[in-house]
Amino acid sequence: MIKPWPAIRSAVVGEYRVFQVRQDTKLSPRTGTPHDFFVIESVNWVNVIAVTRDERLIMVEQFRHGSGTTELEVPGGMIDHEDDTPLAAGARELREETGYEGDTPLVLGQVYPNPAIMSNTCFTVLVRNCEQKHGTAFDHTEDLTTRLVPIGEIQDLVASGRIRHSMMIVALYLFELWRKRVSGS
Amino acid sequence: MIKPWPAIRSAVVGEYRVFQVRQDTKLSPRTGTPHDFFVIESVNWVNVIAVTRDERLIMVEQFRHGSGTTELEVPGGMIDHEDDTPLAAGARELREETGYEGDTPLVLGQVYPNPAIMSNTCFTVLVRNCEQKHGTAFDHTEDLTTRLVPIGEIQDLVASGRIRHSMMIVALYLFELWRKRVSGS
Repeated sequence: MIKPWPAIRSAVVGEYRVFQVRQDTKLSPRTGTPHDFFVIESVNWVNVIAVTRDERLIMVEQFRHGSGTTELEVPGGMIDHEDDTPLAAGARELREETGYEGDTPLVLGQVYPNPAIMSNTCFTVLVRNCEQKHGTAFDHTEDLTTRLVPIGEIQDLVASGRIRHSMMIVALYLFELWRKRVSGS
Repeated sequence: MIKPWPAIRSAVVGEYRVFQVRQDTKLSPRTGTPHDFFVIESVNWVNVIAVTRDERLIMVEQFRHGSGTTELEVPGGMIDHEDDTPLAAGARELREETGYEGDTPLVLGQVYPNPAIMSNTCFTVLVRNCEQKHGTAFDHTEDLTTRLVPIGEIQDLVASGRIRHSMMIVALYLFELWRKRVSGS
């Protein structure tokens, strides 16, 4: 049985706009000795599997400032305080980043982006029967290009390393498992 | 065409043992105005798909200090400076965390854990024909339990949310895609 570690002290030690760093001092349940752990705190995130009537996935390409590379991704972003739910946030991000709208969203899953050093979670939501209804509404630092990708090509894009943002790969796998359940195969 | 953002200033603004935070000031290629971005820097990581001769996956359960929860994962960790390669690091993490050893490792893929705010990459390596050869050698803060999971159960564990560490889900999907390629189906 894995035991939790009781915390004896906790404080924010760094503020970086989209995340902050917290320092926790905790006691080992095995030895009783204190250890410090640094935890990155952020709001929760949502990624959107958005599919058109003709079974194409709505993807976006954008420059990413952590890696310094352009990545092929699904739409998504932070769940703002104004968003009531991950579903509302997903529909908003899809609309802002691509101009598409579709059916009422459905949650496909919730994961920890990195439970070793981050406290937040990331939702994957599905929006079907999407159609382009509006222009895009980028944030100041966003500059995205929309790509429509046939669903049948997703596995090759992941296996070949063309899609390499881990949270997007998680979203695509959850979508694949959902499709398998729904089709009963 | 998505354009990169030229950096005009870059400095480390926080040191947190297993990661540090860097502040980059960059110019928008669209507007020319400067924006600040915070980037989490870390060594690269490796996760290990380790399989026994009877097709069971070697997994570990451990308490995670970011989420404050116990997670079911595959073995893995940081690629230390002493490790020559991701393959050597993977074999070492597998040995230290579970006592298992197997065939020469194989790289299944390389992804960005979070290219929006992190600069590092994460490798997935495969080790086949694993057998328990040693006891375990935990770090001071590690306390792991080994679990052997039949490969056929992986999809249900992901779909049900029993496995919810995103990097592990990526490793399992890359393994599934590799098996599909190898079997030719």
